[in-house]
Amino acid sequence: MTTVFRWLGLLLGLALAPTWAAAEDGYDLWLRYRPLAGAAQAQVQARARSLVLAAPTSPTTQAAVTELRRGIQGLAGREPELTSRVSPGALLLVTRAQAPAGLALSWEELGREGYALRRATLQGADVTVIAANGDVGLLYGSFAWLRAAQTGEDLSKLDQRSAPKVALRMLNHWDNLDRHVERGYAGASLWDWWKLPDILDPRYTDYARANASLGINGTVLNNVNAKADSLTAPYLAKAAALAGVFRPYGIKVYLSARFSAPVELGGLKTADPLDPAVRAWWKAKADEVYRAIPDFGGFLVKANSEGQPGPQDYGRNHADGANMLAEALAPHGGVVLWRAFVYAADASDRAKQAYAEFQPLDGRFAPNVIVQVKNGPIDFQPREPFHPLFGAMPKTPLALELQITKEYLGFSTHLVHLGPLFEEVLQADTGHGGTVARVVDGSLEGHKLSAIAGVANIGTDRNWSGSQFDQANWYAFGRLAWDPDTKAGRIARDWVAQTFTTRPAARDAIVDMMLASREAVVDYMTPLGLHHLMDTGHHYGPGPWVNNLERADWNPTYFHKAGRDGIGFDRSPTGSNAVAQYAPSVARLWSDPRTTPPELLLWFHHLPWDYAMPSGRTLWAELVARYDRGVATVDDMRRRWAALEPDIDPQRHAEVAAYLAVQAREARWWRDACIAYFQSVSGLPLPAGTRPPEQSLAAYQALRFGFAPGR
Amino acid sequence: MTTVFRWLGLLLGLALAPTWAAAEDGYDLWLRYRPLAGAAQAQVQARARSLVLAAPTSPTTQAAVTELRRGIQGLAGREPELTSRVSPGALLLVTRAQAPAGLALSWEELGREGYALRRATLQGADVTVIAANGDVGLLYGSFAWLRAAQTGEDLSKLDQRSAPKVALRMLNHWDNLDRHVERGYAGASLWDWWKLPDILDPRYTDYARANASLGINGTVLNNVNAKADSLTAPYLAKAAALAGVFRPYGIKVYLSARFSAPVELGGLKTADPLDPAVRAWWKAKADEVYRAIPDFGGFLVKANSEGQPGPQDYGRNHADGANMLAEALAPHGGVVLWRAFVYAADASDRAKQAYAEFQPLDGRFAPNVIVQVKNGPIDFQPREPFHPLFGAMPKTPLALELQITKEYLGFSTHLVHLGPLFEEVLQADTGHGGTVARVVDGSLEGHKLSAIAGVANIGTDRNWSGSQFDQANWYAFGRLAWDPDTKAGRIARDWVAQTFTTRPAARDAIVDMMLASREAVVDYMTPLGLHHLMDTGHHYGPGPWVNNLERADWNPTYFHKAGRDGIGFDRSPTGSNAVAQYAPSVARLWSDPRTTPPELLLWFHHLPWDYAMPSGRTLWAELVARYDRGVATVDDMRRRWAALEPDIDPQRHAEVAAYLAVQAREARWWRDACIAYFQSVSGLPLPAGTRPPEQSLAAYQALRFGFAPGR
Repeated sequence: MTTVFRWLGLLLGLALAPTWAAAEDGYDLWLRYRPLAGAAQAQVQARARSLVLAAPTSPTTQAAVTELRRGIQGLAGREPELTSRVSPGALLLVTRAQAPAGLALSWEELGREGYALRRATLQGADVTVIAANGDVGLLYGSFAWLRAAQTGEDLSKLDQRSAPKVALRMLNHWDNLDRHVERGYAGASLWDWWKLPDILDPRYTDYARANASLGINGTVLNNVNAKADSLTAPYLAKAAALAGVFRPYGIKVYLSARFSAPVELGGLKTADPLDPAVRAWWKAKADEVYRAIPDFGGFLVKANSEGQPGPQDYGRNHADGANMLAEALAPHGGVVLWRAFVYAADASDRAKQAYAEFQPLDGRFAPNVIVQVKNGPIDFQPREPFHPLFGAMPKTPLALELQITKEYLGFSTHLVHLGPLFEEVLQADTGHGGTVARVVDGSLEGHKLSAIAGVANIGTDRNWSGSQFDQANWYAFGRLAWDPDTKAGRIARDWVAQTFTTRPAARDAIVDMMLASREAVVDYMTPLGLHHLMDTGHHYGPGPWVNNLERADWNPTYFHKAGRDGIGFDRSPTGSNAVAQYAPSVARLWSDPRTTPPELLLWFHHLPWDYAMPSGRTLWAELVARYDRGVATVDDMRRRWAALEPDIDPQRHAEVAAYLAVQAREARWWRDACIAYFQSVSGLPLPAGTRPPEQSLAAYQALRFGFAPGR
Repeated sequence: MTTVFRWLGLLLGLALAPTWAAAEDGYDLWLRYRPLAGAAQAQVQARARSLVLAAPTSPTTQAAVTELRRGIQGLAGREPELTSRVSPGALLLVTRAQAPAGLALSWEELGREGYALRRATLQGADVTVIAANGDVGLLYGSFAWLRAAQTGEDLSKLDQRSAPKVALRMLNHWDNLDRHVERGYAGASLWDWWKLPDILDPRYTDYARANASLGINGTVLNNVNAKADSLTAPYLAKAAALAGVFRPYGIKVYLSARFSAPVELGGLKTADPLDPAVRAWWKAKADEVYRAIPDFGGFLVKANSEGQPGPQDYGRNHADGANMLAEALAPHGGVVLWRAFVYAADASDRAKQAYAEFQPLDGRFAPNVIVQVKNGPIDFQPREPFHPLFGAMPKTPLALELQITKEYLGFSTHLVHLGPLFEEVLQADTGHGGTVARVVDGSLEGHKLSAIAGVANIGTDRNWSGSQFDQANWYAFGRLAWDPDTKAGRIARDWVAQTFTTRPAARDAIVDMMLASREAVVDYMTPLGLHHLMDTGHHYGPGPWVNNLERADWNPTYFHKAGRDGIGFDRSPTGSNAVAQYAPSVARLWSDPRTTPPELLLWFHHLPWDYAMPSGRTLWAELVARYDRGVATVDDMRRRWAALEPDIDPQRHAEVAAYLAVQAREARWWRDACIAYFQSVSGLPLPAGTRPPEQSLAAYQALRFGFAPGR
């Protein structure tokens, strides 16, 4: 036989671990429960030998026990014994009524949803106790225990108590009924309306688990640009089916309500909130909703904003509209979340509009109305100052609306960790006696009703959020919703440990990368307080030159006002005086460029290109330096991620690396296009040593993206 | 201690196998490779101890070896040893050039893509040989071997040889660039255009594996209602990236070409196929495409049909248009698939239009043009007679276009196995000397170029096709594309064995259910040759009353012509004489109601309600009986499926059961609405003993589905 079998190359290629072997695709999110190593695993085995439910059984306790079994099986390699016997190494789920003697705990402080995790000696046995006043607290406590196990905490020293500071911790899905997700970059809407209510995708349960693990307890199913169809009987039945899946996980369902529904669905001639027939229609509709969903949360409303119908169509105000709905929902315990994202067409400074319309209404809203306010006064930019309404409406509960989906932050392609952005807002001192967090959690102004909402980044993509790292933004939102004072670094570290690796060096390297990423995107898109420079419609890529849109306050040029003389929007007393909407201490700081932090400078001031920055550079040179710093940071992120290859499973490592390569290219594109444009309007040469943009301004202006996602 | 721990209910509930344990979700399709039991597993272990590659290494052989390793690992529990040594129990991949002495094989007959599977004694060792002339044949042979192992064939008696009868075996994706899939009921488009070409979803590889396992070797990526953007440089780069993933699996990429692209993209004033500038534009465009994708397959074209641009816009004919594109592609070896789905607006019988426009052009097409013809002359109805063009254009290669996605067959909700439908078409005797299969495979008329296309049912749903059983339609299409004479029952049995169970009783029960399902849907939607009775736009649910559409030949009433006098479309010589487009022997049969099979009766004849059917019943009573039979069949399918619970994994069993419940409800809806309507126009009472429709005709007519998928 003369055949030579050429195996060498093939064997080398195939010597790697089989590529089909359970590659991680991100579906399991941070609830991966991969086997722990060594001592970490041993301690889980030791402290979760058995599982004891000392509480009434319910679907919620069943969910908790199932999750613990699943987690312990995954982490420790063997399931805990289910028993009623208290023995050494037992993990007990305990409510007050069934607490064994010997367990000393301040049950009151835990409230309805809180939990305590504690090592204890009961009946002579060294056990761990997950304690709560009710079953949902046990569920949250179980997830907290699992998180401690996943992140390698010393389980023998466990002593946590935690109760949420914010009452309503909600996702807002901007999902349409045709399954398109507005500003969604993670596939289609999770809700298969066509097949609901008959078919319940197992994914709905995993959605509920993921949210319960963070303490998220409410979800608005449909887009704030709502269709009235969502309130019709067939769709209420579909929403009820979802509510049934979510209920054991402590999650209530809410719906966005279209203000004109009485006309569209009821055939009425008006939707005037003061019209008795309209009020009656909403009462009947609310009754119908609660027959379908007895624990329905309430309505989220976008009204008189960007073309949505509302009370102003009838010469009424926001309080009139909100209070009508509030009255319909109050007998059922429901709430109205009324969005303050408004901007009048003929106003001089878009940033002032929401305050102008809402602040005067403080105290006029019914008790079950929450006014939902975006984190800043424009629209989810990479950086905005906190919204002036926070602290300025002390008689009204205000919800903070954050955007988890990255509409202006690179969609799901760019790695941008938003924990630092969320933290920056929450920790901002409003000047009214406390931080934004103290306003939002109700403690500053004495509100029991409190809420925080995140515009979800969730879709049908296998990895839920469009990319591996976008999951961390959902996670960070949830952790901060529970406790707005949690540190972003702590959250990132926990997420990395649960999602990627507990090896400290690798974990810390990833955390560093994540924490650097927010400032990177500010730098390469909109440094020094610039904002709203993106291209039209899809909001992807740079468009600082755009000046031809229907409304002046949609144009990037409106927001940067760059010209020969300088750049920036004067919101100081010499300009629009938007600063005056803030507390005096804050307004004072931001009225003067010299006391305005550089990262907000051009938000509040219009300055000449040669303005002297604290760094010593001119404004123009600083701007270019920031753009370059952003690009450099992304390059550094790529290098760090490449070095982490030994620590990360191959499929996710390769995927993130591919995304970072795109981000690096696009960070350069932003930098080049913006510098080219600003140079063209300033007439200034590039600072010495600056790499010129790769293409001409005209080339950047000619780019078109016809089918960008999320429109 | 007085606490009582109430475990009993909880323990009972939790005693089941953990629900998180690798539940089958259908993602693995028929390539599940679950461990075989007992003797079946032992034989795989015995006959695949080692893997020997006696062929040049290439990405394709690598794909084959990887698949065999994966499959054998899954089926037998251990991976085969990779070696160059021929030893007992080895599985050899062998091409002619490297075939060991002692292997007697008729290599010629295998052609480029065929394979042989044979037990052989080589060098004294009892081995299995997978033999082919080239690497793609080895890949197909590997999948065939795995199928044999999965389906429990006796591997010691293996002696297969198989070469495809049809050259181009293609999927047509009606996918739009915004990821909406026209007539798609399985989620969004698989192709993430936004993230291509940089990000290659691992799912693209699994798509390629699934298709290679069936022998599908071509895929048209974009909707026949094409956007010119698909031919622009950025989109060609994205298509090239997909082509790179598919290439090792023997799959070529094709694109739907918009006929007006020279105007839209090239800025020309015309798209007249005889215009030299237009011809030059297409030549240049073809050159550009082939620079991006050197083995690009060709263009699929929908022209002058349902508003699409085409040569008739310039007073030219289909051959003019097709030949222009053919000339541009010929130097590169590409083909043009030109669709014959046309129907003129002012014609008397829509069923006659395609033949009228295309038959006279026989012999006028360039050699690399294939005319693609739907299976029947209307549009993918539950039953149609075969298309009269088959056999009537002997000088032109005709491709058969089948619809895998169930636009008119219950979307992805109704279980309808299409193998019997496909088989019925392929085995139909054209009367021109052979079956449709002989026309399509080129053997009747001596064409080397041959093609078959399936409008794909694939999307981002985890189970790929919208439901577990819809996968079987993709599978059946692929198996029949390779060998159009395969029996539908054999295909269903293989699919069930690979996808669900090899236990004979259970397997056969599922196969029976599948094989009964096609006639069931005919019965409960459109019995006795009725067609096109669906509701407007979304094509879901009954709408036999609809008569208000823009074109007469879009109205259901046009197709059934039901009135006081009778029902049915007269296509006999006394009517539109569409029968005359068929061969005389066929036309003769279908000209006379007495020799027309009942299942086609109302396709070809308009008959009085009291026409005497062969069964002895009147036509009206037969119609009602058929509707009732359809409903009864679905009820029976539910019972059979319920009885199979012990044999099927819980998640898939429950899912299919839920779908069948919906189908049962909707079969009744179809039956009730159609009977109510036909009764209203006939004026006749229901046959004695008939269950009356549950609701009034007006209630059925009032149903609206605003957000049905697939529009």
